[in-house]
Amino acid sequence: MAGIRKVRKEDGAGGKYMQDFLRNFILSRFRGGAGEIKLEDLEDGSDFPGGILTTDSYVVTPPVFKGGSIGSLAICGTCNDLAVMGAEPGVMSMSLIIQDGFETETLERILDDMKYWSEKVGVKVITGDTKVVESNVGIAVNTSGVGFRNEWLNRNIEVVREYREYPYSWVRDCGLRDGDAIVISGTIAEHGVAVMLEREEFGFEVDICSDVYPVWLFLKDVLGKGGITAMKDPTRGGIAGVLNEMAEKSGVGILVEEERVPVRDDVKGFCEALGLDPMSMACEGRVVMGVIEDLAEDVVKELKRAGQKDAEIVGYATSEFREVVVETSIGSRKVLPPPVADPVPRVC
Amino acid sequence: MAGIRKVRKEDGAGGKYMQDFLRNFILSRFRGGAGEIKLEDLEDGSDFPGGILTTDSYVVTPPVFKGGSIGSLAICGTCNDLAVMGAEPGVMSMSLIIQDGFETETLERILDDMKYWSEKVGVKVITGDTKVVESNVGIAVNTSGVGFRNEWLNRNIEVVREYREYPYSWVRDCGLRDGDAIVISGTIAEHGVAVMLEREEFGFEVDICSDVYPVWLFLKDVLGKGGITAMKDPTRGGIAGVLNEMAEKSGVGILVEEERVPVRDDVKGFCEALGLDPMSMACEGRVVMGVIEDLAEDVVKELKRAGQKDAEIVGYATSEFREVVVETSIGSRKVLPPPVADPVPRVC
Repeated sequence: MAGIRKVRKEDGAGGKYMQDFLRNFILSRFRGGAGEIKLEDLEDGSDFPGGILTTDSYVVTPPVFKGGSIGSLAICGTCNDLAVMGAEPGVMSMSLIIQDGFETETLERILDDMKYWSEKVGVKVITGDTKVVESNVGIAVNTSGVGFRNEWLNRNIEVVREYREYPYSWVRDCGLRDGDAIVISGTIAEHGVAVMLEREEFGFEVDICSDVYPVWLFLKDVLGKGGITAMKDPTRGGIAGVLNEMAEKSGVGILVEEERVPVRDDVKGFCEALGLDPMSMACEGRVVMGVIEDLAEDVVKELKRAGQKDAEIVGYATSEFREVVVETSIGSRKVLPPPVADPVPRVC
Repeated sequence: MAGIRKVRKEDGAGGKYMQDFLRNFILSRFRGGAGEIKLEDLEDGSDFPGGILTTDSYVVTPPVFKGGSIGSLAICGTCNDLAVMGAEPGVMSMSLIIQDGFETETLERILDDMKYWSEKVGVKVITGDTKVVESNVGIAVNTSGVGFRNEWLNRNIEVVREYREYPYSWVRDCGLRDGDAIVISGTIAEHGVAVMLEREEFGFEVDICSDVYPVWLFLKDVLGKGGITAMKDPTRGGIAGVLNEMAEKSGVGILVEEERVPVRDDVKGFCEALGLDPMSMACEGRVVMGVIEDLAEDVVKELKRAGQKDAEIVGYATSEFREVVVETSIGSRKVLPPPVADPVPRVC
């Protein structure tokens, strides 16, 4: 016997180790789906005759941080998983695991955030579950959501199909093709940094809020304009994670111009000081999308009009290589590998 | 200031305290629904245009017990919440929170149970999420499920409507009316006892397995026969919990003949020795239903034909009082109050 094998932190960190974990333990037992999207596609959600189903369990520590809480993450994050597939957030479940002795004041803050964001998005919390446990879990929140087909999604697919074949019924992360522009909806890494700042005293002045936000609020207009071929929200693993996932699933490479990636100066400074790459840090209110090249400027314009003032074309998909390659301002190129694990654990 | 208020174990125990907790914290913020069933109805699930959505987080300790595991509970329990509303389990999400260092052998046992039962029921696990945490949670599993309208449910409602008005589109726990027979599908309290036995050494010989089972497998035939007016599965709080909930929501009383309630002798003996009431102990594969009086014998026959050999008519709904009243074999009557909390915590 090789000894007892154990689950490790990296197995749930959203990077390469987690992919292996899922393949070994989950996909060896569960495969297939109820529609176009299979479990083994490892998409943000999966379709069934009534819409898209998605789920997320949130375990962020601490549960309240600058700019939000585990409650904001639970509503926004689950709605975002639906939104990046083009599904309109419709109904949700909310399931709480609370530690015995957890302060009700913090719980109320969390529930207030859930109420605020669910009303903002227009998603209905229709069912739930509550468990109280003795283990030192603090609070864990699961939200599962169902998203619906809608006119904006339909319009988007119609527009894409004016340019090329698009064999999918939803916006998929495998939809990138050679030449597509890569668009980022806003500045990156703020959520990851905000959670880190909440945990420790770093001895220099920084004032960074989580970017947690329900992307559907600006995405529907962009979908209505049309041209999005692939989309993901960069949470665990940051944009390094989602760019690699989109490239691999689509069978293309991606070239990113480093200086076009929007990062706030204070975020960049903080990350440099700690040796962290903002490209691997979590966002909770941003979107990375592939867009039909001819429509990319319009999409960015529409994003800005919808309030995403830092939206930017940061690169393009290419069939010349298969990696994600970052080009610096002086023209040197380096491969941006998929993260093996999250540099900051438990950010969502 | 009255000091810091904290969440207590009883707040998540499925009894009266939990009802208060839900009213104070959840229903003060979230109300309404997307169809006929509102969040404040505190049903097992809630309808939306595509079906019924339900969610459950499982935290049972230990995670493996005689007759099953947290994996069996997660699949069967979530499917059961759908089934008691007459919905056919269709698609599910699976979300794991695993403690860093959790043994993969136990994890595999749990996932094997999930695979086994999901295939048995014919429900598709189409999406999921995995988090690894440092807190001593062991493993917590959330399963959310969507159930669909089906011919068996439609037939049941058709049959009920031949006898009286039934204004609901799904089987509801508020559907009991004066004169309805109360039917229990099998022997009670085995799940609660099995989990207790796993935790401690009680110094006498008992061999009791959890009754965990997906009730849809026998319910669809019974629904197809028709006549079910109300239905619940007695988990936390046992049949004392669900009988009181059905009575209160329906605005009727329930009379139960104690000696007709099926309890195995060894379960009864174990509970007596420890001063526990089997009526308050959890089941995970049983159903309590109200049935049109004239059809009750047929329903019991159908349940037996579908393998539930201990199915029994145990009483009836009445408009003479509003409580759940238990009549003993010598004719004395006592009120069976709703449990305030679960006598055995963390059974599901």
